[in-house]
Amino acid sequence: MREPILKTKNMLVSLKKMNFNMYRKDFLLTWNKSTEDIKAILTLSEILRGLYRDNVNLRVFQTGLGISLFRDMSTRTRMAYASACNLLGLGTFDMDESKTQITHGETVRETSNMISFLSEVIGIRDDMFVGRGHNFMKEVAESLDEGFEKGVLGHRPAVINLQCDFDHPTQTLTDLQHLNHYFGSLENLRGKKIAMSWAYSPSYGKPLSVPQGVIALMSRFGAEVCLAHPEGYGLMPDIIDKTGEFAKGSGGSFTVTDDMKEAFKDADVIYPKSWAPFEVMEQRTRLVNKEDEKGLDELEKECLARNAEHKDWVCDEDMLSLTKDKSAIYLHCLPADVQGVSCEHGEVTEGVFEKYRIQTYRQARHKPFIIAAMILMCCFRDPVSLIDDKFRGNKHRTG
Amino acid sequence: MREPILKTKNMLVSLKKMNFNMYRKDFLLTWNKSTEDIKAILTLSEILRGLYRDNVNLRVFQTGLGISLFRDMSTRTRMAYASACNLLGLGTFDMDESKTQITHGETVRETSNMISFLSEVIGIRDDMFVGRGHNFMKEVAESLDEGFEKGVLGHRPAVINLQCDFDHPTQTLTDLQHLNHYFGSLENLRGKKIAMSWAYSPSYGKPLSVPQGVIALMSRFGAEVCLAHPEGYGLMPDIIDKTGEFAKGSGGSFTVTDDMKEAFKDADVIYPKSWAPFEVMEQRTRLVNKEDEKGLDELEKECLARNAEHKDWVCDEDMLSLTKDKSAIYLHCLPADVQGVSCEHGEVTEGVFEKYRIQTYRQARHKPFIIAAMILMCCFRDPVSLIDDKFRGNKHRTG
Amino acid sequence: MREPILKTKNMLVSLKKMNFNMYRKDFLLTWNKSTEDIKAILTLSEILRGLYRDNVNLRVFQTGLGISLFRDMSTRTRMAYASACNLLGLGTFDMDESKTQITHGETVRETSNMISFLSEVIGIRDDMFVGRGHNFMKEVAESLDEGFEKGVLGHRPAVINLQCDFDHPTQTLTDLQHLNHYFGSLENLRGKKIAMSWAYSPSYGKPLSVPQGVIALMSRFGAEVCLAHPEGYGLMPDIIDKTGEFAKGSGGSFTVTDDMKEAFKDADVIYPKSWAPFEVMEQRTRLVNKEDEKGLDELEKECLARNAEHKDWVCDEDMLSLTKDKSAIYLHCLPADVQGVSCEHGEVTEGVFEKYRIQTYRQARHKPFIIAAMILMCCFRDPVSLIDDKFRGNKHRTG
Repeated sequence: MREPILKTKNMLVSLKKMNFNMYRKDFLLTWNKSTEDIKAILTLSEILRGLYRDNVNLRVFQTGLGISLFRDMSTRTRMAYASACNLLGLGTFDMDESKTQITHGETVRETSNMISFLSEVIGIRDDMFVGRGHNFMKEVAESLDEGFEKGVLGHRPAVINLQCDFDHPTQTLTDLQHLNHYFGSLENLRGKKIAMSWAYSPSYGKPLSVPQGVIALMSRFGAEVCLAHPEGYGLMPDIIDKTGEFAKGSGGSFTVTDDMKEAFKDADVIYPKSWAPFEVMEQRTRLVNKEDEKGLDELEKECLARNAEHKDWVCDEDMLSLTKDKSAIYLHCLPADVQGVSCEHGEVTEGVFEKYRIQTYRQARHKPFIIAAMILMCCFRDPVSLIDDKFRGNKHRTG
Repeated sequence: MREPILKTKNMLVSLKKMNFNMYRKDFLLTWNKSTEDIKAILTLSEILRGLYRDNVNLRVFQTGLGISLFRDMSTRTRMAYASACNLLGLGTFDMDESKTQITHGETVRETSNMISFLSEVIGIRDDMFVGRGHNFMKEVAESLDEGFEKGVLGHRPAVINLQCDFDHPTQTLTDLQHLNHYFGSLENLRGKKIAMSWAYSPSYGKPLSVPQGVIALMSRFGAEVCLAHPEGYGLMPDIIDKTGEFAKGSGGSFTVTDDMKEAFKDADVIYPKSWAPFEVMEQRTRLVNKEDEKGLDELEKECLARNAEHKDWVCDEDMLSLTKDKSAIYLHCLPADVQGVSCEHGEVTEGVFEKYRIQTYRQARHKPFIIAAMILMCCFRDPVSLIDDKFRGNKHRTG
Repeated sequence: MREPILKTKNMLVSLKKMNFNMYRKDFLLTWNKSTEDIKAILTLSEILRGLYRDNVNLRVFQTGLGISLFRDMSTRTRMAYASACNLLGLGTFDMDESKTQITHGETVRETSNMISFLSEVIGIRDDMFVGRGHNFMKEVAESLDEGFEKGVLGHRPAVINLQCDFDHPTQTLTDLQHLNHYFGSLENLRGKKIAMSWAYSPSYGKPLSVPQGVIALMSRFGAEVCLAHPEGYGLMPDIIDKTGEFAKGSGGSFTVTDDMKEAFKDADVIYPKSWAPFEVMEQRTRLVNKEDEKGLDELEKECLARNAEHKDWVCDEDMLSLTKDKSAIYLHCLPADVQGVSCEHGEVTEGVFEKYRIQTYRQARHKPFIIAAMILMCCFRDPVSLIDDKFRGNKHRTG
């Protein structure tokens, strides 16, 4: 299972030559990072995974804290973030808002400073309401800038987006790493058809950040990205535009269809996943702002009824048989709504999911290393030499 | 208070000669471990406690996580587990099921993998329902096996039972270590009468794992184990059988009585503690599975009423005076239901408890080191050399 | 922003000459510490902050736990405590009383021992009820003494007061450090007028510990301390007496007035903050002890109505213009009730608060280092040589 040391060495050599620029910046949206930045994160993540498996001690912080602030449930990302911090030597501190007073409004700038005196990184999940999550992260980031400039903070912690209303970069880079492995290189993504498709789920209000993040990221590597969803389940127009531009720039293509079959036809990669329509999410935010409980209940009912009209949007054997050689690679950020297992009707049938189950676990295993790579890139001027030293130092992590 | 260094050295020498075999295994039930394994855990635990008191740095993990998953309240074991992980250099991550989605059923195998990418050990308490806890731990363990075999996980974390429906090994090994100290050696347990007795408590549904674990463990060292409980408060038949076999094999004895006095008569060790009848626990699980709230309420009332018929099952001065030289050693896993302190009628009177209070604290102090010994045994091929190196290395934990 | 290394060296030299005595003691109340102890904490805190900014690795514990036990909400102190523990190498373990059984009464002594086997420090916040917090901390401390004396514990963890009903030493030492910076030295506090004033807040039941701690501490350095509050909002008489004695002993003065303007007139330092009257807090404790919910509701209403009579006790531009050169330094422990921001009427107007906002953040940044200094002083016989070694050792915290 262990990659040979030579491969790790070679990756270090290529990383040294890359022209990335993430030091003292936050990691909020992949589309604000250069393609070279993206490639550097993937390469560093693989180096870290290789060294970890070779029992190299990767502790670069002797002390320091990684703060996590989750405004929504999370198993995978919470755990991956804690693992990444721990791998590099950071303790984690979970800001539980029920025990504290951090809120939207005046005190964001105050609390941002109060939690940062000895912190190196702040990971935030705020994905529930369209128009909020990314804005909240920006407000935290600006408050930290002010605190650093005015001498409150001795250094400026990095903010990392663990899922907002726009994007979910730690997930989509994990997905991209998985494809990188599967196809052998990022270069091999060129010309591959990637179907990001809506699928039915009995739940409501799932964020748009995964499909948005997936199309905006995959379109930068020459792939034929196809987005499929029933009418009325559109994503944010700005991100659709951005994806079109990325596809054009990378020599790939970007199409949108309201036919799942069309998307799956000859696809190399399929990513069937439920989300709520953008317009519904906007209406929801307006109702939340007005604290209109009754309106919210009605919206939920309406939305679930509307979803139920599209129960045929399921990734079953028939759908799968349309894909390239009937065996496209299936991606999911997990947990999937598996028909007959966790729900009566869902995103994917039990048979199809079981076929790919272990692959989805292998997909997920990259996330801690992706996050660790982000932290290194954001916090250190020369992360490559730092890791090279760890490699040469020959210090073991255990024993 | 500090044990002399020579004693620690000698224990290392004897540990080297022992024929234990716990590497890459889980620690779920004491009766699936060899007696040599049990002795090795006790010896290593004492070595760790000695070195800790001599301020030796016992960090064997530079990074890594110990996951804890508690499905029931816990102060002592939670703290002991966190302390053991910290002693060896692991960060701890508490899986709070209210913040995550780990549940019985399909996703156990998924979540088991998701929490394990950079984890070394997973400690689980699941003791509430007969027929569930041990099965859950096995399901986690099998999921980890699959993940490791199929390349999802780079290594296989160890699963440690922090109390299930069958056994509570970190507690009973703590109890055994206390007796080891008290009598001077495990060999001296031979022929000692150990009374594991039911006692009255105003609460209902206490797990069977402590009495079961105690009789199954103590019977392996030549002791005369006597189990006492009112009619209808029986333990699991399989474990009763196992205890009989262990007693036979070790040259001790095992008897069951429905008379507390008979059990206490001439006892060297007394362990009066409440538990729920096995049959009631089984019925409870059936009602829980049916989500029969009304049935559960009735069962609780019935069971409390039945308990109340046995308020005379209390460890008071009269009971104590029956024991060997009127001064058997009193054991309890804490917290005890102390009559006149935490309840009107309870397991033990205030006077008797106060006499042994500090001894029960001294009993409890072994638990962090027992757990640390388990982690070392499960995670390292050669834990003895590892600790010997720490000893010789002369590195201080503090300063 | 970084203080020159020379300054840190000089502080180490002066600290070596100081005659402090905190080893193996708890830090519960500033007035039970000598003035030399107070000065030593401030000096060590500055040394730690300087070394931290110079990226010196301050890890003095290779393993070990810092326990925190919060019986009230906290962002700042919780975070500062976790940061201080982390800075010195301790993992933190948050005792969540909803997951455990620690309570007032019998089991305090038991639980105190159970959480201490591998712990170095126990930080407690218990500030809600007059007559409880300090007593609880003393009970924990005495239980640890017993456990240590009787061989339950191999060492005696230090107890640190993170706010009780009497005092809030980590906050007031933070405040004092801020003034130390602002005026250039503690000596320069001599003759400065410090106005600790009640101010209106729409909430009820705020602890007395900050105003009590502030007057009792500031009066030890020759300042002219003036306490202002409406009639009936008095502090604890014992602490008022103590403050008078300290003022006399230090060559300063202590006055009490019921006129906010009088307090602010020519003040060098203003600290406008709400609190509940001592008598009300006493009545509240009596009602809580009787579990008189109705009585508590009535008391709250009464108290809020009484507060509302004093809405003119607000720190606005007019008040500020009374102070020395119209520009006294404004202190607050945060979060402040800012009029027009977090409430309609509050302790301070938006304009005045905004003027000092960044200064209040700079005030707060001292707290993690104050707590770290306390831990070092309580846990190590010779903390000065220890830190001097870290300084000379030239080991980096990151990289």
